Parts: sequence; structure tokens; C-alpha cells
Amino acid sequence: MEQAIHLAYALDTFYFLISGALVMWMAAGFSMLEAGLVRAKNTAEILTKNVSLFAVACVMYMLVGYNIMYPAEAVNSWWPGISFLLGADNTVEEVLASGGDTYYSGMSDFFFQVVFVATAMSIVSGAVAERMKLWAFLAFAVVLTGFIYPIQGYWKWGGGFLDGLGFSDFAGSGVVHMCGGAAALAGVLLLGARKGKYGPKGEINPIPGANMPLATLGTFILWLGWFGFNGGSELKISDIDEANAVALVFVNTNMSAAGGVIAAMITAKLLFGKADLTMALNGALAGLVAITAEPLTPTPLLATVIGGLGGILVVFSIPCLRLCCPTVMRRSAVS
Amino acid sequence: MEQAIHLAYALDTFYFLISGALVMWMAAGFSMLEAGLVRAKNTAEILTKNVSLFAVACVMYMLVGYNIMYPAEAVNSWWPGISFLLGADNTVEEVLASGGDTYYSGMSDFFFQVVFVATAMSIVSGAVAERMKLWAFLAFAVVLTGFIYPIQGYWKWGGGFLDGLGFSDFAGSGVVHMCGGAAALAGVLLLGARKGKYGPKGEINPIPGANMPLATLGTFILWLGWFGFNGGSELKISDIDEANAVALVFVNTNMSAAGGVIAAMITAKLLFGKADLTMALNGALAGLVAITAEPLTPTPLLATVIGGLGGILVVFSIPCLRLCCPTVMRRSAVS
Amino acid sequence: MEQAIHLAYALDTFYFLISGALVMWMAAGFSMLEAGLVRAKNTAEILTKNVSLFAVACVMYMLVGYNIMYPAEAVNSWWPGISFLLGADNTVEEVLASGGDTYYSGMSDFFFQVVFVATAMSIVSGAVAERMKLWAFLAFAVVLTGFIYPIQGYWKWGGGFLDGLGFSDFAGSGVVHMCGGAAALAGVLLLGARKGKYGPKGEINPIPGANMPLATLGTFILWLGWFGFNGGSELKISDIDEANAVALVFVNTNMSAAGGVIAAMITAKLLFGKADLTMALNGALAGLVAITAEPLTPTPLLATVIGGLGGILVVFSIPCLRLCCPTVMRRSAVS
Repeated sequence: MEQAIHLAYALDTFYFLISGALVMWMAAGFSMLEAGLVRAKNTAEILTKNVSLFAVACVMYMLVGYNIMYPAEAVNSWWPGISFLLGADNTVEEVLASGGDTYYSGMSDFFFQVVFVATAMSIVSGAVAERMKLWAFLAFAVVLTGFIYPIQGYWKWGGGFLDGLGFSDFAGSGVVHMCGGAAALAGVLLLGARKGKYGPKGEINPIPGANMPLATLGTFILWLGWFGFNGGSELKISDIDEANAVALVFVNTNMSAAGGVIAAMITAKLLFGKADLTMALNGALAGLVAITAEPLTPTPLLATVIGGLGGILVVFSIPCLRLCCPTVMRRSAVS
Repeated sequence: MEQAIHLAYALDTFYFLISGALVMWMAAGFSMLEAGLVRAKNTAEILTKNVSLFAVACVMYMLVGYNIMYPAEAVNSWWPGISFLLGADNTVEEVLASGGDTYYSGMSDFFFQVVFVATAMSIVSGAVAERMKLWAFLAFAVVLTGFIYPIQGYWKWGGGFLDGLGFSDFAGSGVVHMCGGAAALAGVLLLGARKGKYGPKGEINPIPGANMPLATLGTFILWLGWFGFNGGSELKISDIDEANAVALVFVNTNMSAAGGVIAAMITAKLLFGKADLTMALNGALAGLVAITAEPLTPTPLLATVIGGLGGILVVFSIPCLRLCCPTVMRRSAVS
Repeated sequence: MEQAIHLAYALDTFYFLISGALVMWMAAGFSMLEAGLVRAKNTAEILTKNVSLFAVACVMYMLVGYNIMYPAEAVNSWWPGISFLLGADNTVEEVLASGGDTYYSGMSDFFFQVVFVATAMSIVSGAVAERMKLWAFLAFAVVLTGFIYPIQGYWKWGGGFLDGLGFSDFAGSGVVHMCGGAAALAGVLLLGARKGKYGPKGEINPIPGANMPLATLGTFILWLGWFGFNGGSELKISDIDEANAVALVFVNTNMSAAGGVIAAMITAKLLFGKADLTMALNGALAGLVAITAEPLTPTPLLATVIGGLGGILVVFSIPCLRLCCPTVMRRSAVS
């Protein structure tokens, strides 16, 4: 019995750490994706942002964010407690006394959480690419990763009001992607379009990605990392039911991405007469985001359909954006 | 006892999922390898093929292929059964009643199998690079991943006639690589050489890879992914003997790749007076393919030799191809 | 009891193998980092070196090095014993009789050790990039990986005199990085500066990296691989205390890298007026190296500070090198 608790704790902690490492790897995915899609002259800048935002996210979330988001995790709090920064973790006695209810290392939880914050900030970096200065961007990273993300994360995952209302968010479609996306939208509205995107008469100049192999590599990295992102969000793997759940999450995550690619390519072919690489990559990412709110409930077939809807949506979103917000999007051309 | 079955099931499932994720990562490896070796103008096309073939493979194998290849996996079949697409998996009662004979999630098995199919199709995409249209290629992907691969896979892994005859294929030198290779050869014979490969008088124009860092990255990704490909094919890790077996497979896979690199470089140096990067990369891949039929039986020393033979063979295969099939290879120049 | 020993052995072996695979992946990281930082004309050469040094390291360490470094590991020795090359490993009886003291596969230990050797040699390849011929470099790789590394590694990890004196080196700041760094320094002193680095009057010509996305990718790969490098060096994960330790090592490794990035960027901004991508990348690597000697003792906060000191040091080391060793560094220009 006691040995089984030891082993389960070790297995769940290991599973958490590997999942976290896969999510950390998504930082490389965002970097390559964004570096591949900007103009060559802006490559170094977007890379600098991605490396440094990850570092800022780690430090700010350790110092402030984690404690705001999970006030109940006494063992890991330092504010007002200081145990976390002293490296304290569950003791053997505590774990055994819990009878297995405490089933992974508190440090591994912090590790898994801290890489999620960086993901949210990476979404912002992609959106404001080519139009925001480095230090201003990093200042915003301090605010988002230290305060904005943790506060809205607390609403759901920390036991706040959204959680009380029964809001469901398995792996962070809302907490991570919508948080990052909303911040990104705010940034884009403030900053206006990229210089050169719109001509003096409002005509649209496409800005093709400068390095498509990098963008493709970035997408594959994100696809791989998403197994950790969604798979790790089950939080436990050490019994038969939990292992089945994690396996279903892996399968659904993969099928949703695949459905997104196929749907985006067919939609683009029907709509524009051809399907290009950018559509395939956007389709994969749309499928992955689409399944992230609930990758455990659907069957693999349904997950493919959910991903496919994401893939269709992403293709339509391009002409829609042009129709709906022409003034906003052309602002840089006007000003 | 019961707890030990739970833990073993969880560990084997986790090991299967991580192995599968490493094999999924090979899709990125093939993409980078192939994108690095084609001419710059064809980069986007080969990337599009690689992303979309992976998606097609996942969907076709889920809908049709898995059921053709493993008809006995009742829990995962939907055709005639529908349990798999409904997300059904082994119940706790079934696993405990089996006394540990059912030792991993059925979903994790599907995940591990589905990424293998994509690998076979990736081999085709590399071979027909620069000479096949996107949608024709994807139509063939539908047929190969939905029908051809599963039928010949059934012969061995599904319990078909090859298995009955005692045919041995640990991780898929035959089922995966030979299947993909045979389809690739058929495609190449039909399509002829790449335009520009042979001049009007039959002279050979080398087509150097346009982006060697990408090709190198792709090879390293494949090398890493191969630990999942071969290591996961042991199917179980949860006792001392199985853990030793998986460890030996990791070591042998690594040593065979290393032997392939060294042998290819020395052979090229002796044969052509110099060893270049392409030879080193081909040597690694040849070593990895060479050990895949049986990475568990040989000692590490013998595995190095097996990989080395693969590395020698790959260097000799280039002049051999030129001598043996000049007509075939020059067809595009003639037509 | 017996089942628990089986499971713990399997879990520890799996953890060791996954850690080793992450360290193997660092070979790709060094390749991309070095390929990104050299001039475009030298890319293929540095890539060839990185692929082939990995292969040489694996074969030499298997044949000679492992036996020099760990003479006590009878089960894995072949010289004078031959059991290792015959693929022998711990038997079930031996493991059970040990009562769990033998807790992972001997083969998995070899796998984890062999990828470390390649890491040390990769450090050399980066330092002598653009100034050493391929076959001379590989000849040195034979000597370093077969003899130099194992002999000094024995001093500490094999139970030699440094270990007897109480020297502490958790994951190889000394055994791996200092060994590689010392060899690299010797090489650089012998070879002199890169051609073109110094003008005829001693003026310094900066040699910017030719491909910064590759260098960034390489840094992220190294960051990811370092979780295996440091995390695996705890050697065991299968009980509560060990799982907590591995989790702390993951967190500290990550925080130290993050601290390095931030400190390097701020230092560069204060010192040179701007922070560029190279500084951020160097900061991350400096933070990672800084924590590797002892990633288990410090708290996460202290680990951030340790990494930060590394990040400051790396920025100052550039002008220091120019002040302290101008003669050495300019030798190529003089000769």
C-alpha cells in the first residue's frame, strides 16, 4: 500500500514534468512559426521577443503570479507564506497521510503552470509582431504574466467565480488562448496594421512569410507540444481510468489537428481555387485550439469534426476580418 | 496486487503515448529533411505535402485502416463494431479480470499505430518530391494509408499469413519502411526523374540540397523519433525484463545510427576521396533503417556493425543506381 | 513487494531513457546553434562535424570509454569482462535479491552516459568552428571521447580521487562542460583566431551569425534537452523524495535559464546601450551551465539568481577576453 503510493506519486510527477517539458518546447514552436511568417528584416526582433518573454514569464509567475492564481496551494505559496521560494514540497509523511490524495510534487505543478503562462504571452508576441518595440513589449509581458493571466486564471483554475458558476475549461482554451488572444487583439487595435500592409488607397498588400520551412517546423513543434499541453491537463495518469483518459486526450488532440488541416485545405480550395501551405498550417493550429477546451469528452470521430470546424473557420476569418474591420486594420496606412 | 495492475497499466500506457509522440515528431523530421534536400523553389510544395499527408493518414487510418489491420481488437473496432469511434476503452473490471494481460489503453495503441502509418507515407513524399502534383499525391495518400498499408500490415502485425509463417519484423523494417519504399519506387518508376536531373545527352546534373541545416535538423529529429519508433515497439516496459529490453533497443538504435554515420563517411572517403554532409546524414538514416527489423536481439557491438553495413550500402547505392537503371532514371530527360 | 520492485525498476529505467533521449537531442541543439553562428560558407562543415562527432563519441565510449570511467560496473564491462558488448543486463534474480538497491537497467545507464560524452565534444566543435579540418577534428574526437573524458570522468563519477576528496558535481559542470571547455580552449589557443576576425592593424571585425533563427532554435533545443541532462542526473525518481528532487531540478534548471536571459539583456542594455538576440541566447546558455553543478540544493529564487550571475558574466566576458588575451586572439591576423 505504502509502496503503491510512492510509485503512483513518482509516476504522476514524472508525467507532469514530461508534459511540462513538452509545453516549454512550444516556446520554440511559437518562435519558429512567428520568425517564419514575418518579413526577413524583422526576424531577429521577433526571436529576441520570444526568448525574453519566456524568461520574463518564468520569473514574474514565480515571484507573483503563481501565488495570485493558486492561493490555496499553501505548500507552494510564499506570499504571505515563503515556503515555495524556499523550495519546500510535500513531505513523505503528508503524502502517505493523504492516502494518495496528494499525488504529485508541488514543484512539478509549478513547472507545468509556469510554462502555460509563457504560452499565453507567446500568442501576444505573434500578433504584435513587426509593430511593437522590444522594451515596451517586455514591460507588457511583466504585467500580463505577473498579474493579468494569474487573475483571470484564478477565476477558473484557482477556484474563483467562474469555477463556482460551473465554467469548464479542460486545458485552457479560455484561460490561456483567450487570455492571450484578447491581449493580442487589444494590442493590435492600439497599434494598427503593420506598415506596408495597406497602400495609400487602402489596397491590401499581402505580406508573405519569409521562411516557410521555419513556420512549418514551428507548427509541428506546437503540434507535438500540445500533447503535453492537453495530455498533462488531465493532471493524473496513475490508474487505469486516468491512463485511459490521458490516451483519449492524446488521440483527440491529434485527430482534431488532422481534421483542421484537411478542412482548411478543402475550404481554401473551394473558396480560393487553391490550398497553400499557410492554410494547412493555420488549419492545424485552429484544430488544436478548437479541441483544447474539452479534449476528453468527444470521441475521436467527433474530435476530428471539431478540429475541422476550426479549420473551416480559420479560412473564412481572413476575408471576414477584411470586411468587418477595414478601418481598424487600415489605420496605420491612414496615420 | 490490484494496485500493481493499475500502476503497470498506467506506466505502459504512458510509455506507449510518449513513444507515439516521438514517432509523431518524425513527421517534422521528414518535412525538414525533404525540404532541405529539394530545390528552393519546391520547398513550400514539399512542406504542404508533408503536413497534409500526416492529416490524411490520421483520418483514413481511424476511419478504415486500423480496423482492417487489427480486426481482433474488438474494443477498438467500429466496422462492424462502432466502439472505437465512440471512444470506448478497456474498463477497470476487464483489466483487473485479465490479471494484467491487458496492460495498456486501447486508445494508446491506436495512437502508436496511427503515427506509424504517417511515417510510411512520409517515405513516399520524399521519393516523389519535385515531381508529383499535390492533389494527386493526397489521393494516393488516401489509398495507401487507408488500404495498402493496413492490408500488408495485417499480414504480419494483425495476425495474417506472414505472421503465421513465422516472419519477424520487430518495429517495421518491412511493414513500414518496405511498404513506403515499395510505393515510393513504384511512384518514381511511373513519374521518371526530376526535370533537370539529366541533360539532353544523358549527362547527370547533381541537384544539391538547398538548405543543409534543415536536412541535418530533419535527420536529428528522425534519430530522436526512432527511439519511440523502435523503443515503443517492445509494447511493454513495466517489469524488469521488459525494462531491460526497452533499454537495449534504445542503445542498439543509437549505436546502429552511429555505425551508419562512420561507415558511410569512411566508405565515401575511400570511394570518392571525400566525405560530405549528405553522406553522413544518409549513413545515419541507413543505420537506423537497418536495425529496425530487429533491434532487440543483437548486442550493442553487433548493432554498430549492422548499422555500419547499412552505411556502406547507402554509399554504394548511388553509383549502382546509375549503372543499373540508367534508362528508367533518365526517362524524364528523354520524354 | 516483488511487484513494487519490478515497477520501480521499470519506472526508473524509463525515466533514465527519456532523460537520455533529451540529452541526445542536445546534439541537434549544438548543431543548430553552431550552424547559425558561423558564416554561411562554413555551415555544411560545422554540421558534418556535429553529426560525425556524435557517432564517434558513441562508438569510442562503447568500445573504450565507458569501461575506463566506470570500472566497477561489472555487469556492463567487457574489458577485462565482455558482458556489456554481449548485451548482458541485471537479471530479475539479481534485482530482486538486491531488494531494490539495483533500480535501473545497466543498458539505460550506458545510454545516459554515452550521450553525455557527445555533449562534451559538441562544446569543442563550437569553439574550433571555422578553423579546424574535418578529419583532424574527428581524430581529436576519438581521443577525447575514448580517453580524455572517461579518465577525468572517472576521477569524480567513477569513484576516483576527486570523489574521494568530496568534490561535488551534480550533473557535470566540471565533468562535462569544463572538460569540453578546457579542450576547446586548448584548441583555440593552438589554432588562433578565425581568419578575418582581426584586420592587419589589429582591428576587430565582428563576425555576425549568418542564420539567427537556427541559433535560436538551437538554444531552445538545448534548454529542453537540459531537463534531461540535469533531471536525469538525479538517477532515480521512483519514490516521493526522489520525485520531489527531480521536480525541483526541473524548476531550478528552467529558472536559472530564465534568470540568465534577463540578466544578460539588462547588463547588455546598461553596458552597450542595447540588448540583442545573441545576448539573450548567450544568457540562457550561461544560466543553464551555471546551475548544472548543483541544481538540487538551491531554492527556485536562488537558482534564478545563480543563472542571473551567469548571464552577467557572459556579457562581461566579451570585452574581458578582448582586454586580457589580445595577443592570443589576434594571432591568426599576425601569422
